[in-house]
Amino acid sequence: MRTFVMTLCTAFLMCGDVMAQQPAPTLNDLVPGGATYRFVENLYGLQWWGDACIKPGVDSLFIVNVQTGKESLLIAREQVNAVLEARKLPKLSHFYAVKFPWKGTDEMLLALGDKYVAYDLKKGEANVLHTLPEKAANIDFCNESRRIAYTVGNNLYVNNDRLTHEPEGVVCGQSVHRHEFGIRKGTFWSPKGNLLAFYRMDESMVATYPLVDIGARIAKPNNVRYPMAGMTSHKVSVGVYDANSKEIVYLETGDPTDRYFTNISWSPDEKTIYLIELNRDQDHSKLCQYDAESGKLLAVLIEEKHPKYVEPQNPVIFLPWDATTFIYQSQRDGYNHLYLYDTKGKPVKQLTSGDWLVRDVIGFEEKSKRLFIQSTERSPLQSNIYCVDIPSGKRTLLGNAEGVHQGTINASGTYMLDIYTAPGVPRSINIVHTKKGASVNLLTAGNPFKDFNMPTIETGTIKAADGITDLYYRLIKPLDLDPDRKYPTIVYVYGGPHAQMITNGFQYDARGWDIYMATKGYVVFTLDNRGSGNRGLEFENCTFRRLGIEECKDQVKGIEYLKSLPYVDGDRIGVHGWSYGGHMTTALMLRHPDIYKVGVAGGPVIDWKYYEIMYGERYMDTPESNPEGYEQGNLNRLAGNLKGDLLLIHDDQDDTCVPQHTLSFMKACVDAGTYPDLFIYPGHKHNVRGRDRVHLYEKITRYFDEKLNFKQ
Amino acid sequence: MRTFVMTLCTAFLMCGDVMAQQPAPTLNDLVPGGATYRFVENLYGLQWWGDACIKPGVDSLFIVNVQTGKESLLIAREQVNAVLEARKLPKLSHFYAVKFPWKGTDEMLLALGDKYVAYDLKKGEANVLHTLPEKAANIDFCNESRRIAYTVGNNLYVNNDRLTHEPEGVVCGQSVHRHEFGIRKGTFWSPKGNLLAFYRMDESMVATYPLVDIGARIAKPNNVRYPMAGMTSHKVSVGVYDANSKEIVYLETGDPTDRYFTNISWSPDEKTIYLIELNRDQDHSKLCQYDAESGKLLAVLIEEKHPKYVEPQNPVIFLPWDATTFIYQSQRDGYNHLYLYDTKGKPVKQLTSGDWLVRDVIGFEEKSKRLFIQSTERSPLQSNIYCVDIPSGKRTLLGNAEGVHQGTINASGTYMLDIYTAPGVPRSINIVHTKKGASVNLLTAGNPFKDFNMPTIETGTIKAADGITDLYYRLIKPLDLDPDRKYPTIVYVYGGPHAQMITNGFQYDARGWDIYMATKGYVVFTLDNRGSGNRGLEFENCTFRRLGIEECKDQVKGIEYLKSLPYVDGDRIGVHGWSYGGHMTTALMLRHPDIYKVGVAGGPVIDWKYYEIMYGERYMDTPESNPEGYEQGNLNRLAGNLKGDLLLIHDDQDDTCVPQHTLSFMKACVDAGTYPDLFIYPGHKHNVRGRDRVHLYEKITRYFDEKLNFKQ
Repeated sequence: MRTFVMTLCTAFLMCGDVMAQQPAPTLNDLVPGGATYRFVENLYGLQWWGDACIKPGVDSLFIVNVQTGKESLLIAREQVNAVLEARKLPKLSHFYAVKFPWKGTDEMLLALGDKYVAYDLKKGEANVLHTLPEKAANIDFCNESRRIAYTVGNNLYVNNDRLTHEPEGVVCGQSVHRHEFGIRKGTFWSPKGNLLAFYRMDESMVATYPLVDIGARIAKPNNVRYPMAGMTSHKVSVGVYDANSKEIVYLETGDPTDRYFTNISWSPDEKTIYLIELNRDQDHSKLCQYDAESGKLLAVLIEEKHPKYVEPQNPVIFLPWDATTFIYQSQRDGYNHLYLYDTKGKPVKQLTSGDWLVRDVIGFEEKSKRLFIQSTERSPLQSNIYCVDIPSGKRTLLGNAEGVHQGTINASGTYMLDIYTAPGVPRSINIVHTKKGASVNLLTAGNPFKDFNMPTIETGTIKAADGITDLYYRLIKPLDLDPDRKYPTIVYVYGGPHAQMITNGFQYDARGWDIYMATKGYVVFTLDNRGSGNRGLEFENCTFRRLGIEECKDQVKGIEYLKSLPYVDGDRIGVHGWSYGGHMTTALMLRHPDIYKVGVAGGPVIDWKYYEIMYGERYMDTPESNPEGYEQGNLNRLAGNLKGDLLLIHDDQDDTCVPQHTLSFMKACVDAGTYPDLFIYPGHKHNVRGRDRVHLYEKITRYFDEKLNFKQ
Repeated sequence: MRTFVMTLCTAFLMCGDVMAQQPAPTLNDLVPGGATYRFVENLYGLQWWGDACIKPGVDSLFIVNVQTGKESLLIAREQVNAVLEARKLPKLSHFYAVKFPWKGTDEMLLALGDKYVAYDLKKGEANVLHTLPEKAANIDFCNESRRIAYTVGNNLYVNNDRLTHEPEGVVCGQSVHRHEFGIRKGTFWSPKGNLLAFYRMDESMVATYPLVDIGARIAKPNNVRYPMAGMTSHKVSVGVYDANSKEIVYLETGDPTDRYFTNISWSPDEKTIYLIELNRDQDHSKLCQYDAESGKLLAVLIEEKHPKYVEPQNPVIFLPWDATTFIYQSQRDGYNHLYLYDTKGKPVKQLTSGDWLVRDVIGFEEKSKRLFIQSTERSPLQSNIYCVDIPSGKRTLLGNAEGVHQGTINASGTYMLDIYTAPGVPRSINIVHTKKGASVNLLTAGNPFKDFNMPTIETGTIKAADGITDLYYRLIKPLDLDPDRKYPTIVYVYGGPHAQMITNGFQYDARGWDIYMATKGYVVFTLDNRGSGNRGLEFENCTFRRLGIEECKDQVKGIEYLKSLPYVDGDRIGVHGWSYGGHMTTALMLRHPDIYKVGVAGGPVIDWKYYEIMYGERYMDTPESNPEGYEQGNLNRLAGNLKGDLLLIHDDQDDTCVPQHTLSFMKACVDAGTYPDLFIYPGHKHNVRGRDRVHLYEKITRYFDEKLNFKQ
C-alpha cells in the first residue's frame, strides 16, 4: 500500500489550540439548504463580452481591466430601470443574470419575466426581442440570429411559430435518451442561426411508471415514460428547421428502433450536421455526416467498436480557422483524448495522449493555432487547464498546478477567466494571460468555516482488490481525536461510473454532512473504487456486466485500511450512499453483514432490471442477454442476508431511480423474514434538496447515532 | 371508579407453579398466519338441513341426532366421488363446503370448481345446475329457483344471460356505498327467486386514487374510485330483473345525486321492494316501498331524523306467518331495538326495549309466534340469545348467560345450533331445544394454549372523561409478575364506531400479539372509549363532528388508571393501533407527548378529508360544513408536537384508508422538523394478513423493545 497522505494543513484547520475553543458547525451551517448554510463567496455572472471582462453587481455593472483587475463602472441599475420603466417593462433587481453575447455591439441581453430584451448601453434603449408564452420551457436563444427556440408542453416553437403538432407521447425539442451520451438539451442552432436541429422522441410505446403525487387533493399519478432495461425503448429522430423557409426536414437515419442519436453538431457553413449514432448494445458507434438541406446521409466518417461498450459523450468541434478539420474525442486508447480529422473522415493526428484524460475543450486562440483544455494530467483528482499548441501538440499549464479549475476563454483567446478551488482554497478567481501566464486576482474567497472548529481531512491511496490499481480515499478524523479512543466509522460511498467523490477541490470535496459527522466524533471515510470516474476506460469498465461486484471488493479493501488505524472501532462501521451509492450501501450490508453494521441507502438501485435502458444496458446489457449478471446484482435475492440495521430512503417523485427498487426490497425482506427500515420523502425527486435536506441528514444522523450506539 | 374486575381464573391460566415450567408461546403460535398458529378446534360446515343437523367431515358426512348428539353416517366421500368421476366432474376433497339448502329433498349442493352441482343422495346422481365463466365473482345462488346471479368485471349475469352492458366506471351487482349502511352485497333474490333486485353504481364521476402495484414488471397504478369527504360521490340505482320475462326495470327513485339506497328487502309475495333511503347528510332516512313490476314508489312508510345522524343497518324482515307485518330496526330510543310495522307503515308495537341493544335477528318459530335474537342484554361485552314471544314481548334466555353466542335456528324453529366462546371457553358448540332449553354438546374445544405459560387477563371498568360513563378495559399482566418491578406498558387501541375490543369472548378477545407482549414482560392494556360499539347511540355519537377528541380524553383516563398500578412504569408507555386505532395512536402521541413515549400506527387516518364520504361524513359532515372539526382532527396540523418515537405503517394497496394519509404525515413532519419512522408493506390492503402478519408483529415488537428500552 502506497501511503501518499496529504494532510489538509491550513491555518484554519490545524491551529488546534485556538480552534478547540470554537464551536463545531451545525447541519444548518454545513448542508446546502440549511438556514445558516455557509456559501463560498463568488462573483456571480462574471463573463466575457468579446475580450472585455464584465463583472455584475446588484446595483452596478463593471468592466474589469484584464491586466490590472481594476473595475470601472459600465452602468448603474437605476439607469437601466428608468429606461425599462418608461417602456413598461419589468425592472432588473440585480445584474447577475445579464448576458453579453454580442461582441462589437453596445448591447446586453436581459431576460425580464417572459421577455427577452436587447438593451443598448450607449443609446439607453430597450428593444423587446421576444415575448414568450407562459409555459415556455427549454428556451434556446440564438445569439447570432437572435431567434429563440422553446417548447410548450411536448411541442417545439421558434419565435411565434409552432413547429410541431405532436400528440402526447411524442416530445420535440427536449433532451432525449434520458440525458445519457452527454445529451443535455434538444435544440441546436446552426452557427449563424438560420437552421435549428432538434430532437423528436416518440416514446408512446414506452411503459409508464406512476409516481404518485400526494400533494393533490386526492393523490394522482404522475405517469413518466420510463424505459426499463430489456423493455421497449423510445424512437428518436432529428429534425432540421429552416427558419427562413419555415420548413422541416428529418434526417434520413433509417429505422430508429433501438438506436441512439447523440452529440449533434454543425459544420461552420451550416450545410452539414454531424451525429454520433450508437446501436442499442452500445458497442458500435458511428460518426455520421448528414446534409442539412436534404436530410440525406453523406458519409459515415468514424466507427468505433469495443467488446464492452463505447460511450460517445462529446460532439465534434471544428477548428475555428479551418472548416475542413474537426476535433473528435475518443477513449480508444484507454483515456479520453483529442483527435483531429478532416471532413472526409481522414485522421489528421492524435492531438493529446497519455494516461490521463481530457475533461473538456474550453476554447481556441486562432492567431497561433492553440486550443485550451481541462485535463487530469496533473492528477486524477484534479482538473487543470492546458494550452495545446495544435501544430506541435505541446502543452503548457495555465493557471496553477493545484486543484480543480474551470476556465472561460475570451473571444480572441488572449485571456482566460480561471475559477478554481483547492483543498485549502474555497474559491479563487483570476484573469490569466494565455501566453504570458501572468494573472490578476479578482477574488480569493474567505473560508466560510473559519469561525468553527473543523476536523482534519486527509487523502491517500490504497491498492484495489486486484492488488495493482491505486484507489484514492479521503479520511476525515473526529474533532480533537483522542488516540486512545476507538471511534465509530461511517463510509460514505458512491462508486458508480462518471463520478468521483475525492478531488483536490476545497476540503477534498468532503460534503457538509461528512464533516458534520466528524465534528460529532465519527471517522468518515470515502474510497473511489474501480468503476468510478476520471480514471480511464479500463478502470471504469472492469465492472462490465456485473455492476457492484468489483466495487464491493474494493470497498472491503478500504475497510481493511480503516481497521489498521488504531482509533477506528472495527465493530462499529456504518455505510451511507445515494443512488449508485444506495446500491453500494445495500450491497455491502448484504454481502458483508459482519463488516457493515448499519447502513443508510438513499434512492438505491436494488435490481438493475428496474433501471433505465440507456445507462443500465451500457454496463449490464439486457436481463435477457446477461441473466447471471442481473441475478448476481439483484439485491432482492440477498434480502435474507440482512443482519445489521439498514434504513432505505426513497423519494416518491424519483423518476431517475423509481420507488419500485426500494419497495420491492421491502417485499423481499418481508418474504425473507428480515427487518429493514424505511423512509419516504414526499414531493422530492432523486435526492432531497432545498430546506428539507437538513431534515434528511438529521434523520440519517439519528439513525447512525442510535444504531451505532454513538454517544457524544 | 368502579372496579369490577374479573380475573380469568382457569386451570390452564392460573396454575402458576406447574405452568412456570412451560414455554411461552411465540408469535408464530399466537398470530393468525403464523407457521404454528393455534387454531381453536371447530366443526366446519355444521348446518341445518331443514330440521336435521348435518356435520361434515373429510371422508364422511354425518347426521346428528338433535336430542342425543349421536352421529350417523349420511354418506361417504368415496361414494360421492365415484358418481362425480363417472360424470367427469371434479372430485370432493372434503365435505366442509357442502350445502343443504333444500329441505324435504334428498339433494345437497356442491360447488365444484366452476360448477354448481345438485347431488341426489338417494339416487346417487349428480346434476350440473350451472357452469360459471372463469372470472365469475359475487356469486349469489338462489336456493328456491336454483338460478344463479354473478358478475364478470363490472357487469351482471343470471345463469347464462348477461343482464347489463355498462362501460368502465359503472358497476352492477356489487356492494355499493363502500359497504356502509350494512351493505355487503349487490344482488337480492326475491323470496321465490323469480326476480332479482340489484345495485347499479355509476362511479364514473368519482375521482380515482392510484394504488401502485410494484409486483408488475414495471409498477402500474391500480386506480380505485375513491370518493373523499366533500368531493363528488357516486350515483346508485336499483334494478329489478325478471328472470321469466328477462326484462329489467329500474326503481323510480328520482335523482340519485348525493343519496344512499340501503337495506334492500322483498315482500314475501315478491311484489314489493323495500329500501331505506338516506340523504347525503345522513340525518334523514326513509323506509320506501316500491312496486317491483313498475318500479314506482308506492309509499314512504317510516321516516327518521336526528340532529347528528341516523344509520340504517338492517333491512326489514317480514314475519313468516304474516305478510302484512315486518320488523323494523331503529336506534330511535337510544339503542337498536325491534319494532313491528304493518305494510301501510302503521306502527304495531315496539318489540324490544331497554338500555341494551339487539345485535341480530336470527330466526323464527312460527307455531308459537316466537323470534330469536342476539343481544347485549346480559352485558355490553356479550352477545346472548333470546327467544322473544311476539304477542307478549317476553324474552327467554337460550343457551347460557355467558360469553358471545352465535345461533342458527332450524327450519321449524325447534332447535338451535349455539356456538359460543367465553373468557375460559375457546369454543363450545351445542344443540339447544328452543322451548325446553335442553342442550346437547357437540364440541368443547380444548384450549390451544394449554401447553404454554400464559399471562393473566383481567377486565374491569373505569369512568370516562365525562365522569359518568363506564368504560370497559382489559389488562394483561406480564408473565410471572414481580410486584416490585416496574413494567413497560403498551396500550392497544381501536376506539372507532361499530367496534369493540373487549368482549367476554375467549380470553376477553385479547389478540395474539397482546398476549405475546405480556409473555415478554409488558403490561398490555386496552380501553373501549366513548364512540366505540355496542353501547348505544349516545355513547357513540358524542364524538360527532370531532372524531378523536373525546376518544383521546377517555384514553388518558385509562392511563391514569394504569399509573395507579404499582407495577406500571409510567415513563414507558407505548400505544399501538390500526386504522381508526392508527389515528388514535398518532393523535395520542401528538396530543399527549409527555404520556405516550412510543407509538406504532398502522394504516392510520391522518386527515379526515382523505377518508371516504359514507363513513367520514356520517361522523364529520363535510370539510366545507365542518371546517373546525376537520382542522381539529387533522393530525398533520399537530406534526410539530411529535416528541417520542412514532412508527407509521401503511400498505401500498390500502383502498380503505389510502396511503395519502401516512405520506402526507411524513411531509408534515418534514415541514415541521420532527422525525417519525415509516414502514410500507407492499401488496397488502388495509392490514397485513396471512404469513406476513408475523413479520408485521415482529417489526412492531422490535420497535417497542428498542424504543421503550425493553430488555427481557
